Amino acid sequence: MWLFLVFVTLVFGVLAGLYAWTVYQKLDESQIGHPRVAELSSIIHGGAMAFLKKEYSWLAPFVGVVAVLLVAALGLGAAFAFVLGALCSATAGWIGMYVATNSNGRTTYAALAAMPADEKAPAKKAKKPSVDLEKSEAPADENTVAEPVAPVSEGGLLSAAGNALEVAFSGGSIVGMVVVGLGLIGLAVSYLFLNDVTALTAFGMGASSIALFARVGGGIYTKAADVGADLVGKVEAGIPEDDPRNPAVIADNVGDNVGDIAGMGADLFESYVNSILAAMAIGAVYSFTQGGDALGLWGIGFPLFLAAWGVFSSIVGCMMISQKAPYALTVRSVIAKLPGMAGVVKRIDDGDAAFALRTGTFVAGGLMIAGTFVLSILFFFSNSMNVFLSVTSGVLAGIIIGIVTEIYTSGDYRFVKSVAASSDTGAATVILSGLSLGMMSTGIPVLLICLSTLISYYLAGMFGVAVAAVGMLSITGISLSVDAYGPIADNAGGIAEMSELPEGVRKITDHLDAIGNTTAAMGKGLAIGSAALTALALFVAYSQAAHIDKIDIMNPYVIVGLLIGGMLPFIFCSLSIDAVSKAAGAMIEEVRRQFHEIPGIMEGTGRPEYEKCVAISTHAALTQMIVPGVMAIVVPVLVGFLLGKEALGGLLGGSIVTGVMMALFMANSGGAWDNAKKYIEEGHFNGKGSPNHAAAVVGDTVGDPFKDTAGPALNILIKLMTVVALVLAPLF
Amino acid sequence: MWLFLVFVTLVFGVLAGLYAWTVYQKLDESQIGHPRVAELSSIIHGGAMAFLKKEYSWLAPFVGVVAVLLVAALGLGAAFAFVLGALCSATAGWIGMYVATNSNGRTTYAALAAMPADEKAPAKKAKKPSVDLEKSEAPADENTVAEPVAPVSEGGLLSAAGNALEVAFSGGSIVGMVVVGLGLIGLAVSYLFLNDVTALTAFGMGASSIALFARVGGGIYTKAADVGADLVGKVEAGIPEDDPRNPAVIADNVGDNVGDIAGMGADLFESYVNSILAAMAIGAVYSFTQGGDALGLWGIGFPLFLAAWGVFSSIVGCMMISQKAPYALTVRSVIAKLPGMAGVVKRIDDGDAAFALRTGTFVAGGLMIAGTFVLSILFFFSNSMNVFLSVTSGVLAGIIIGIVTEIYTSGDYRFVKSVAASSDTGAATVILSGLSLGMMSTGIPVLLICLSTLISYYLAGMFGVAVAAVGMLSITGISLSVDAYGPIADNAGGIAEMSELPEGVRKITDHLDAIGNTTAAMGKGLAIGSAALTALALFVAYSQAAHIDKIDIMNPYVIVGLLIGGMLPFIFCSLSIDAVSKAAGAMIEEVRRQFHEIPGIMEGTGRPEYEKCVAISTHAALTQMIVPGVMAIVVPVLVGFLLGKEALGGLLGGSIVTGVMMALFMANSGGAWDNAKKYIEEGHFNGKGSPNHAAAVVGDTVGDPFKDTAGPALNILIKLMTVVALVLAPLF
Repeated sequence: MWLFLVFVTLVFGVLAGLYAWTVYQKLDESQIGHPRVAELSSIIHGGAMAFLKKEYSWLAPFVGVVAVLLVAALGLGAAFAFVLGALCSATAGWIGMYVATNSNGRTTYAALAAMPADEKAPAKKAKKPSVDLEKSEAPADENTVAEPVAPVSEGGLLSAAGNALEVAFSGGSIVGMVVVGLGLIGLAVSYLFLNDVTALTAFGMGASSIALFARVGGGIYTKAADVGADLVGKVEAGIPEDDPRNPAVIADNVGDNVGDIAGMGADLFESYVNSILAAMAIGAVYSFTQGGDALGLWGIGFPLFLAAWGVFSSIVGCMMISQKAPYALTVRSVIAKLPGMAGVVKRIDDGDAAFALRTGTFVAGGLMIAGTFVLSILFFFSNSMNVFLSVTSGVLAGIIIGIVTEIYTSGDYRFVKSVAASSDTGAATVILSGLSLGMMSTGIPVLLICLSTLISYYLAGMFGVAVAAVGMLSITGISLSVDAYGPIADNAGGIAEMSELPEGVRKITDHLDAIGNTTAAMGKGLAIGSAALTALALFVAYSQAAHIDKIDIMNPYVIVGLLIGGMLPFIFCSLSIDAVSKAAGAMIEEVRRQFHEIPGIMEGTGRPEYEKCVAISTHAALTQMIVPGVMAIVVPVLVGFLLGKEALGGLLGGSIVTGVMMALFMANSGGAWDNAKKYIEEGHFNGKGSPNHAAAVVGDTVGDPFKDTAGPALNILIKLMTVVALVLAPLF
Repeated sequence: MWLFLVFVTLVFGVLAGLYAWTVYQKLDESQIGHPRVAELSSIIHGGAMAFLKKEYSWLAPFVGVVAVLLVAALGLGAAFAFVLGALCSATAGWIGMYVATNSNGRTTYAALAAMPADEKAPAKKAKKPSVDLEKSEAPADENTVAEPVAPVSEGGLLSAAGNALEVAFSGGSIVGMVVVGLGLIGLAVSYLFLNDVTALTAFGMGASSIALFARVGGGIYTKAADVGADLVGKVEAGIPEDDPRNPAVIADNVGDNVGDIAGMGADLFESYVNSILAAMAIGAVYSFTQGGDALGLWGIGFPLFLAAWGVFSSIVGCMMISQKAPYALTVRSVIAKLPGMAGVVKRIDDGDAAFALRTGTFVAGGLMIAGTFVLSILFFFSNSMNVFLSVTSGVLAGIIIGIVTEIYTSGDYRFVKSVAASSDTGAATVILSGLSLGMMSTGIPVLLICLSTLISYYLAGMFGVAVAAVGMLSITGISLSVDAYGPIADNAGGIAEMSELPEGVRKITDHLDAIGNTTAAMGKGLAIGSAALTALALFVAYSQAAHIDKIDIMNPYVIVGLLIGGMLPFIFCSLSIDAVSKAAGAMIEEVRRQFHEIPGIMEGTGRPEYEKCVAISTHAALTQMIVPGVMAIVVPVLVGFLLGKEALGGLLGGSIVTGVMMALFMANSGGAWDNAKKYIEEGHFNGKGSPNHAAAVVGDTVGDPFKDTAGPALNILIKLMTVVALVLAPLF
């Protein structure tokens, strides 16, 4: 029986991989018919892969040491699963980065190819000088735009943005499918070799460790470059975003990939496998009735089947968006025959990109809910509705959290508008209103998490809470596709700017970037909700594994644990923010120095030293990710050994409480500042270049490490600490 | 026996009151021989008392409603204690404010009188125009300084600052003594009428409720005025602090009293009585040995005697500083005879003000420790060392927290210097480095709180933890004197500036303000540490009173409680910050409007409409304090009734965890920004008026509501919620 579970998991994991492979084949066929675009794409690609290589070479010894310690403490099994988890996460990050940095230039070129021939001339020929990207003494003139050799693809139906959506989304969906594919394959392989759910959790520990380092390191890299490029380039020197005269521009564009692709991919890989592992661990021992039979393999298998069905649902969803995927047209024609769907498919075929993304996600979600219903009945007969409704309550809570997040952080609603309005009285009030907004935004999501916890628990105990988290993440395949497609489009825009392509190209890529945002917000809500529920489930799994009766907060050891645990997210955030601001400070000094010392840099005749900026970001990311990452592993172990397993339980509880709050607070403050700045740039409150804008830029800069470094890493932090405790539980 | 406890408590309460009364008599004798100083002092006095009157008239119905509900739910006793607690707190606030606003002008005049005759001419006669403070059409000329009629006192030995230290500290010590005196008298009276430790806790609930409103309201008032005055007056218009041309200047000076005197007084009143109450409640049922006799009256009496001895120690300490206090010279001559103390007393007599403040506090602390030792032996015989060491560990932890706080927030150490240095790269990096510093600063204090909790608990159970908190606060009499003396000196400086007195006067008051800071930092450390320990003790008292076996964080109701409790401090901070920034925004608009619309305002020929700014602060404070205050009472009650007493226990635990973290974070970030700005103003990093300074002002402005509104109120919030739960425990 358990071999059957392994088999099914493996099959769907491989299916996801195959889908990614075929999409990649199609993507790889297309050419970039513009030399400067191709060159820039390859520089960014090279920079990103070089960073990843360095990062992994820093992490390898860490993984080795932990593995040796695990062998000594728990035996070979746990060490094997840990290393496999780390390897799968690293591989997913590597492939994702490889593909994404191969898709950005193709997206730019596809957007260029989609433009009418008479608009293909560069817009700012006379105004802006060009800078050679390769090291050379004499500045080369790249100001001519080569006529595209051939459009990227002949059959693009998404006419609004030409093939650009297709290309960018192809890249995104490869990232998404590789993550879930490797997740399932890794789980299946470790399960096959270990056949022990408890030892299996070390797989999650490996994934979490890599994820934390990747998130923190990636976040530091990208924000140091971003802040440096923005504050000196845009604000002080007054040159546009992604201007090739800005020495930090390459680091900035590499950083987008390091942070948003590799960082996010590792993050979701971790969330995905840990939600499944937590549900497996609890499912193995759960029984619906007091003293009844444990679910055993039924409880272990259900989350795996949910995930497997999620892969299938995600693939179908992707096919609704990307018509070049294998069998996509067949699938669409089948769906078009369903009642009411003919018009939907037609609208997608006519090229409504925003609608396509939304529909793809909804189709995947709908399939997922239907599948959950059927699987619940197959697995749990009389208790099927309890389980099904648990999953549904979790998914609903996640979606509402996404909507609430959107309302707090989008420029379309009053909250961000009021942050923007506070720029009338300067930077200080922008900061205060953004901080206040972020703190307030913890309210509804926390209440929703509480509600979903209570409902799921009432219906199916802690197993219900755990599978609710699995349900929220089961369509990670498509939601990560949508998430990852954004930075690809963003990067494509950067390349367009640096290549001095006509403005229309940038408009297309900006449009592509924007339309993914609302859909991505829903994914973020699911990620936050699932992080909280997964952490709770792992926490309960820990107390089972450590044979703890009760973690009584009237016990002073538990109180002390709670306080220490509650403190850790603050220390963690402090370290991350500090790392970013130090690195950004160094970057600012360097960019200022170059503007000052390199002759002709502003006229485009002097070549900026891009490499120096890349080196600053790389160095900061690698050196500064160590302490927060190691702290997350060492402190729980210390507390467990020194103060006992109840105190460790308290620590986990405390860290979940403040971790969830701080994650929501920082992500939403950061998001609101970002969009308040954009709202002003759209022309409100005196628009770009006004004192209001300058005040909003301060907010945006403060928000950068909030939303892209510390905030998202907190979700990983609380799970990593919990999974470390769970893996080591037999020792306490 | 219990009547004896009541009697002793009452005697020492009255003693504190008598001390305050005699000091006031001396203070009241002195005259202000400068009409403009007298006039300004009386305007500030009038504004402050008017605000307090309004505030109390808003709070009266609230107290009435809660009292009626308490009668219905728990009977007359609890309602009586609640109302008495609220009344005592309000009375202490009233007297403190009355005295402080009568001391500020006297301090100014004493500083003026201390100056050599040839420096008494106004320094900026030609440069700065004068504005009439009373509503009148024709601008009056106040630019002449009347020759002082007579020095405030003839025997001032503190020669450096003349009589100014004496006067300011007299005001401060009245505030301090009134708070502890009314605390002990109130406790004694309620204990006399109720003779029931559980019902007595309603006294603490009354004190906490008023304190929360006073802190939040006062914090909003003072920061709205401060931000408004600074951002438009200092930064935009470029006029100095406390310039009479600034329309917000009166509101600003009134606000200093509303926030730092009334707010802080109510705060410490609450901390003081609740630490005693928590120790009494636990002491009543605690026994040193499993199944042994409960301490009963011994456990109830010990914290009361500690507090009583603390009054005595504080009075002796105050006499070391203020030689005009009754018997001060006698006490000094006695102390001078102790080995090694002759030189100390001489140095004080010679006028070393900073040394005097420090010595007074140390003398009080030394007496307190000696007294605790004796009392421990008298009360607990064989277990005396356990209790004594518990108290000592708490006091030590508190002092070290104070030192750590000082290191994080004083311009003398590298942390604040590095925040100041980050102004090189603009406001955003100032904000980020300050936030990061604040988050990091949670680490050591939390570890110290944990350590002290573990040691005290190991030695004397939860009773040990509770009496450690009492020990930390027992010399509130003198530490509040030092705390309150700061704002009086600050206000005196404001009056000097507005009266256009010679610069030397301002220098004296600035010096007086500064020398209290280090001593005050120690007091703050004790306040933070005791808040955490008191909250824990109240929490345990709640679980005893509600007959809860265990609050197990594996129980989903407790988890939900933890999450909701952890969220409340964030919502609370958001509401407070929002209130400040809205009010400050309105103030900024109003000041800008007046600068723009009132003819001749910058030349000193047009009179600013000070009343309008006062009205804005008053309105904001009163309307915006309601929601956060009511939330703190209603939410615990709701959770208790809806989700049960265990969930309420979880809520309290969660709120203590995030409350402590946020309180430390916000207080220290705010303090660091404040001092980073001052550090730059001292001439570092390009000094005043530079872009660095502008960046630091942004940090200081963000820090204002952090350190003076939300931060300090959090300590009250967590205790108020816990004491509400404790009082209502019989209902759950």
